[in-house]
Amino acid sequence: MTDLVTVGEATLRFSPPRGERIETAGTFAAHVGGPESNVAAAAATMGLDAVWLSKLPDTALGRRVVGDLRRHGVRTGVVWTDADDGRLSTAFVERGGTAGATTVTDRDDAAVTTMTEDDVPLGVLRDAETVFVGGATPARSETLLETTEWLLSVASDAGATCAFDTRFGATGLDAATARELYDRLLDDVDVLIVDETDAEAVYGLDGDVVPTGHSLRTRYDCETVVVTREDPTHAVVGLEGESIYEVPPYEADTRDPAGVHDAFVGGFLSGRHRGAGVREALRDGAATAALKRTIVGDAVVGSRRDVVEIQARRER
Amino acid sequence: MTDLVTVGEATLRFSPPRGERIETAGTFAAHVGGPESNVAAAAATMGLDAVWLSKLPDTALGRRVVGDLRRHGVRTGVVWTDADDGRLSTAFVERGGTAGATTVTDRDDAAVTTMTEDDVPLGVLRDAETVFVGGATPARSETLLETTEWLLSVASDAGATCAFDTRFGATGLDAATARELYDRLLDDVDVLIVDETDAEAVYGLDGDVVPTGHSLRTRYDCETVVVTREDPTHAVVGLEGESIYEVPPYEADTRDPAGVHDAFVGGFLSGRHRGAGVREALRDGAATAALKRTIVGDAVVGSRRDVVEIQARRER
Amino acid sequence: MTDLVTVGEATLRFSPPRGERIETAGTFAAHVGGPESNVAAAAATMGLDAVWLSKLPDTALGRRVVGDLRRHGVRTGVVWTDADDGRLSTAFVERGGTAGATTVTDRDDAAVTTMTEDDVPLGVLRDAETVFVGGATPARSETLLETTEWLLSVASDAGATCAFDTRFGATGLDAATARELYDRLLDDVDVLIVDETDAEAVYGLDGDVVPTGHSLRTRYDCETVVVTREDPTHAVVGLEGESIYEVPPYEADTRDPAGVHDAFVGGFLSGRHRGAGVREALRDGAATAALKRTIVGDAVVGSRRDVVEIQARRER
Amino acid sequence: MTDLVTVGEATLRFSPPRGERIETAGTFAAHVGGPESNVAAAAATMGLDAVWLSKLPDTALGRRVVGDLRRHGVRTGVVWTDADDGRLSTAFVERGGTAGATTVTDRDDAAVTTMTEDDVPLGVLRDAETVFVGGATPARSETLLETTEWLLSVASDAGATCAFDTRFGATGLDAATARELYDRLLDDVDVLIVDETDAEAVYGLDGDVVPTGHSLRTRYDCETVVVTREDPTHAVVGLEGESIYEVPPYEADTRDPAGVHDAFVGGFLSGRHRGAGVREALRDGAATAALKRTIVGDAVVGSRRDVVEIQARRER
Amino acid sequence: MTDLVTVGEATLRFSPPRGERIETAGTFAAHVGGPESNVAAAAATMGLDAVWLSKLPDTALGRRVVGDLRRHGVRTGVVWTDADDGRLSTAFVERGGTAGATTVTDRDDAAVTTMTEDDVPLGVLRDAETVFVGGATPARSETLLETTEWLLSVASDAGATCAFDTRFGATGLDAATARELYDRLLDDVDVLIVDETDAEAVYGLDGDVVPTGHSLRTRYDCETVVVTREDPTHAVVGLEGESIYEVPPYEADTRDPAGVHDAFVGGFLSGRHRGAGVREALRDGAATAALKRTIVGDAVVGSRRDVVEIQARRER
Amino acid sequence: MTDLVTVGEATLRFSPPRGERIETAGTFAAHVGGPESNVAAAAATMGLDAVWLSKLPDTALGRRVVGDLRRHGVRTGVVWTDADDGRLSTAFVERGGTAGATTVTDRDDAAVTTMTEDDVPLGVLRDAETVFVGGATPARSETLLETTEWLLSVASDAGATCAFDTRFGATGLDAATARELYDRLLDDVDVLIVDETDAEAVYGLDGDVVPTGHSLRTRYDCETVVVTREDPTHAVVGLEGESIYEVPPYEADTRDPAGVHDAFVGGFLSGRHRGAGVREALRDGAATAALKRTIVGDAVVGSRRDVVEIQARRER
Repeated sequence: MTDLVTVGEATLRFSPPRGERIETAGTFAAHVGGPESNVAAAAATMGLDAVWLSKLPDTALGRRVVGDLRRHGVRTGVVWTDADDGRLSTAFVERGGTAGATTVTDRDDAAVTTMTEDDVPLGVLRDAETVFVGGATPARSETLLETTEWLLSVASDAGATCAFDTRFGATGLDAATARELYDRLLDDVDVLIVDETDAEAVYGLDGDVVPTGHSLRTRYDCETVVVTREDPTHAVVGLEGESIYEVPPYEADTRDPAGVHDAFVGGFLSGRHRGAGVREALRDGAATAALKRTIVGDAVVGSRRDVVEIQARRER
Repeated sequence: MTDLVTVGEATLRFSPPRGERIETAGTFAAHVGGPESNVAAAAATMGLDAVWLSKLPDTALGRRVVGDLRRHGVRTGVVWTDADDGRLSTAFVERGGTAGATTVTDRDDAAVTTMTEDDVPLGVLRDAETVFVGGATPARSETLLETTEWLLSVASDAGATCAFDTRFGATGLDAATARELYDRLLDDVDVLIVDETDAEAVYGLDGDVVPTGHSLRTRYDCETVVVTREDPTHAVVGLEGESIYEVPPYEADTRDPAGVHDAFVGGFLSGRHRGAGVREALRDGAATAALKRTIVGDAVVGSRRDVVEIQARRER
Repeated sequence: MTDLVTVGEATLRFSPPRGERIETAGTFAAHVGGPESNVAAAAATMGLDAVWLSKLPDTALGRRVVGDLRRHGVRTGVVWTDADDGRLSTAFVERGGTAGATTVTDRDDAAVTTMTEDDVPLGVLRDAETVFVGGATPARSETLLETTEWLLSVASDAGATCAFDTRFGATGLDAATARELYDRLLDDVDVLIVDETDAEAVYGLDGDVVPTGHSLRTRYDCETVVVTREDPTHAVVGLEGESIYEVPPYEADTRDPAGVHDAFVGGFLSGRHRGAGVREALRDGAATAALKRTIVGDAVVGSRRDVVEIQARRER
Repeated sequence: MTDLVTVGEATLRFSPPRGERIETAGTFAAHVGGPESNVAAAAATMGLDAVWLSKLPDTALGRRVVGDLRRHGVRTGVVWTDADDGRLSTAFVERGGTAGATTVTDRDDAAVTTMTEDDVPLGVLRDAETVFVGGATPARSETLLETTEWLLSVASDAGATCAFDTRFGATGLDAATARELYDRLLDDVDVLIVDETDAEAVYGLDGDVVPTGHSLRTRYDCETVVVTREDPTHAVVGLEGESIYEVPPYEADTRDPAGVHDAFVGGFLSGRHRGAGVREALRDGAATAALKRTIVGDAVVGSRRDVVEIQARRER
Repeated sequence: MTDLVTVGEATLRFSPPRGERIETAGTFAAHVGGPESNVAAAAATMGLDAVWLSKLPDTALGRRVVGDLRRHGVRTGVVWTDADDGRLSTAFVERGGTAGATTVTDRDDAAVTTMTEDDVPLGVLRDAETVFVGGATPARSETLLETTEWLLSVASDAGATCAFDTRFGATGLDAATARELYDRLLDDVDVLIVDETDAEAVYGLDGDVVPTGHSLRTRYDCETVVVTREDPTHAVVGLEGESIYEVPPYEADTRDPAGVHDAFVGGFLSGRHRGAGVREALRDGAATAALKRTIVGDAVVGSRRDVVEIQARRER
Repeated sequence: MTDLVTVGEATLRFSPPRGERIETAGTFAAHVGGPESNVAAAAATMGLDAVWLSKLPDTALGRRVVGDLRRHGVRTGVVWTDADDGRLSTAFVERGGTAGATTVTDRDDAAVTTMTEDDVPLGVLRDAETVFVGGATPARSETLLETTEWLLSVASDAGATCAFDTRFGATGLDAATARELYDRLLDDVDVLIVDETDAEAVYGLDGDVVPTGHSLRTRYDCETVVVTREDPTHAVVGLEGESIYEVPPYEADTRDPAGVHDAFVGGFLSGRHRGAGVREALRDGAATAALKRTIVGDAVVGSRRDVVEIQARRER
């Protein structure tokens, strides 16, 4: 069995050096990012056998995505398309949350938007212990929405734990469409990760985090709901059965905020996968997020040992 | 009066360091390139007042193009579009003509492809001494073809010298379409630059360079025809009236072949602009090309003094 | 009409990477800086048509200054001198206000110090809406003092708004000489920017900022006085007629303190130019300064949109 | 079945920038190299499913080796040892064969030298179509010699093609010991690659290349012998049955000679694996070597398409 | 007379850029570090004539160590060994005390571990005003322990001030062995520097810093004891005779914590050398440490002027 | 005794990366160069105890010069002046002899131009076995001419070998002045190095190299004359007594031509110092020059072993 299968898009992101801007920088660092590839990389860092499924143009750019993810220890299952049949998404990102930080995305006509169920290796999907998709993926195209619906249902039927993260910020959906989309997808979801701002924007569940979590757990009948926080210094909240768990973040300097949320998700799913309870898994997520925060790039780099050490340091 | 007005597309090009590949490089150098912007930069280097007209998305990427060209001394006349109404073309280029050099272009839906005559500042066009367009521009879209036809005709009527370079290699046109396209455009052209491989591919004029030039001069009734050579060590040939001029290239190490042809064109047009004869202008072109060859990036950097010194060195 | 004309010196500044020192760094980043060129760059960023006038040696270094400023959107009006008739000022600067930050300036015999009224394009000057000079310029040489006197008077007669910034710190003048110099120049000045430390050092106006501003406004009969603060977290104060405006700074990490004051001035003058009141113009200045603070180099990079977003973020 | 299994050591190699020396360089580029990992990377580039088996210390350095090889598309089967039970070999290499090029190796007590048959995953070995080891591996320690003997015999019994490359240069063995070692190992070898200098040094087979190849083929009863050449412009020679094949190298600038020989071997084995004859496989090897030559680092980067294009270019 | 002689090991340390990890960084910066070489570099920065004695392999790596220390103004007295008779220690260090900072040391079989009294130039030792060794040196090998014992005794007999810093953290000694080792060495020591964590670990002297210092001063009969603090914001404490001095640290951003403690020691010993009292020397140490903190690398770079300016800034 | 004492100026040289220009490069590499410091560095590389004497401003730039030379193994004897009493010469150099290579020098008012005999440590001078000065030094100022005259005479009286290199190209002297200057200085010179172009320009000795050498040897009564060649592929010629020696250059790629001539001189003087005959010393010079040619920067880096290996390679 594969520990974790994620399905989605990866973007090749180009960033000027710290303190320089897209308009004038002489060089750009290249990093591969995407919610599902970031989650897979975080899980691989924690020792899981993680597979990322996607569709890419058969160019040096497409091969780069695969090479970078392999380096992070992620196995890849990619359908290659002709360069003319779909682009690789690119983005130009000023890293570090400074006054003038700018991102220019260039995501139209990406190959992944035409990914149908025929592009998903059924055996890999059925053999997964956990399957993860993020909210931006079904929002990318009607085709991807159908594919996502299908794959959550197939995975669920095959007995996998289905995990879903509602984050859809970058997609530019309006709240009503997003809600409709989630209503269509969340039936088969066991683990729901939702940011408090999404909860407010999409469901109108503002105010306290715990009742928000309960409403969502009831609405979609998920086993586990995790509410992440807009303010990165606030505790994340996990709900399972009648229990509520709050875990504050681990302190770490923020060198690059990209992918920190995804590292949390990957760490949390890894904790659950090795049998940890919700609180311990939230701690794994929080420490993986702290590790990511200090690293430039979208995916976390390191080993489970680093995560354990971050946790141990707080306990001293 | 403006010395030179060029109209066309610029692409933001990302290149790995020498000896590294797109698939694995950690950083990419960014350069702005395009036949018409390169020609304008070469002319500005030679001291001309050069203006580049185009259409760009109003993003940090679009502003970068303008900033880079300004740095090269080119004035810009840009119609800004909404980021959603057109992309900036990007390309990923391994510089240096080595065994495995690869280019991935990403040019669909560029803002410039919707540039109509309404996007061209008529005053600037009518005020130009020389107007230049390259063959790839009308090949980009039907709209651009119509715009090119219109602007050559307007410039011609206003008394400008119209210069055209047939190079269409990267556009992927078939020869028949290219020929049709040139037949539609070249009526108003005074100075025609054609590479011997284009001549062969499009017109079937293989074999000797001089008869090739004469055939084209007759066919399109151009005052001046310049035939550039596939083999960069061969002499370029200029024809005007009954005269034939051959000018061998200046020796220089090739650090980056990008834009060398355009530097030649810019140098040649500059020579003509200051009143030099064909031979002297070809020499200006050849020396500007030699200077470019040694510089990384698509546009030449320097001053007319550098070009004069390269010429003087050969004469010693 | 030109929106803003500035006249002064630019220095080519070489900086080791963060955390390295002049004594051991292997590479140095090059940036062009100078109060008037920084102000012009900030104004161009805000969308103004800004021109910088100066005198430079006709070398690759001099041309670099022009190229860098053009990239920032500044038009340049430069008198070129022979390389033997004046240097380009250079400086070696450890950026970031750390324990051991060191600057070595190398400014003797700069070409600009011999700039006379004959070196100033009279048409450009007379056509300006606003003219700006900083306090270091007249302090550089007797010739520059005379030229400054002349150009403020000419601009004033032509109906331009004359703006002057007293900062003279780096010039090493004593307070008495500075005062004498300002007394000679400030007759024609409409907008006076003064730092509270200068006010104390030169005029002995210590203590409260508001009376300090009033004293200066009375002394020199300026329409508008802006007092900037030694402590970058204190509010700047603007005085016009009987009104007093205080605007606190916008929060931003300081990656490079160079040119932050000049960005403020450029932003403020831009605000006034588009008709904003003093308070709003001070806000434009403060947000432009915040943007600069996060960028490495002497001049701000970006667009008015960045400034507006910084302002909007605080209001949320 | 796995297409290719290689077993051996990888070294983390640090190189100063071109034109700088170990003694003064401020930064060093890091690359992973080793005959067997390079061969596996070349085979993966050609589309094979390649596995590299080794023993590494469980440190960030050891994990880096695995990450880099994965990025090259190589699967890894690594036995992890405690950091105290064996080092990772390092080397400091001035790339580019210039006057003063220096290499400092630091290879004592490498973890791989204690690799026994218990450290080899038997299933992987038995499932291989081709197994490859280089001459330096058995020369590293008595333990590794025994392990090599054992694995060639196991692979041979399981029906795999066994390939061996005699290169032992860097190990510092004397010729007699090397011969003894080869005599012990080559019984099970089907494909023998030998450089003409090794042939001369170890077997005293100087002079013509073809008789040299025949002598070795007879001596060790190998199906195929390939003799590579000291002078990189000479043709390589392949012998199989009574046939002799000579394939000249493809032209390419040499940016980094490291790993060029290994790229040849990987390309050749890939050709054989997909059923090509000796001549065509030698051409695959030669084109893969040409591709490597232009790339900085020990392993080739690219795809089979690059190799095909290099071959096609010569045929035009 | 030589002002300061230090004896010990230097390590060549490779560090990825900030925010990158050993596992994925493309380049590594190289720095030479070691307690005794860092102390010598700090003393040279303060204007002392400082000599570092050691044993190095005669390779480009060994020569690099000498070159780097010379650049810091340190004179070197090195016994060169054959490359086979001992390595240069290397280490791979992620600088900046972030969540996942990792160090991989590779120090076995270093040439310095075989340094005997025959490898120490007796004249240089006898001619020293102050001799310094750190605690890690005698802990490296029995040979080095004997050599350290001998050289402290020789220096003491020759009238030098003997200084010793107990820090042994990186050596991995247990407390009992460390105590035994110090008991053997500290007889001849005049100036003892001890960190409060070492004091606790080795001597069980927890709790208040002042009684800890007194206990050690009594135990080893040292003239001067300096207790440094685990928390870098706490004051260091010096004891001499009946006097107690506390000096708080100077504020400075920490860009690289490596070598900060050694810079303190070098600054303190420099202060004593020029005749300053304990308090003033502690201030010199603290300001030198502050300067180091802002610089990337193991050794401080600058001049005494920088240290004086850091001190003056606080007094304003 | 000191093996070699050189006296002269060093310049801090800033160079853009290969293929970039002063006008647009983002970063510049810094190197210290000067005929006498380069000769000292080459001699130190060859194992000599070499001292460089000069006068520098007491700034971070001046200290950098000393640090860089120390790193090259050169001891320095520097008189420090106030920053206001003289600059450090800077130069901006495009390395690599390409089409548009440009150098901008900025050498006015250098501190060294006021160096009098009082600034020369008499003991060091009298204790030298060989003293070297280059032709540009006395050409810098009347003061330096007098100082050079004095020091050659003092060194000669003290029994040192006096070596002089006529190269004065960069100083811009006319030939007549240069000749006058040499006539004043060469009385005390034992070893004269002259380039054939200087010989032609200054003495009118064109044509064959051997008679040229003899004429100079006779004219100035020097024991040894070495004539270097304009064309770097021609043999250098040495004359001593009646003997003539011709030594062809060693082959090596030219990465940076700066300082190659000086490396030759340093290698030659080193050969003579260890007692080698003229031919062998010329070979030492030629191999040191070849080593330098491959290294970026003005001074050679390496060890005598590298030079010996370059020589051995040719003999194989």
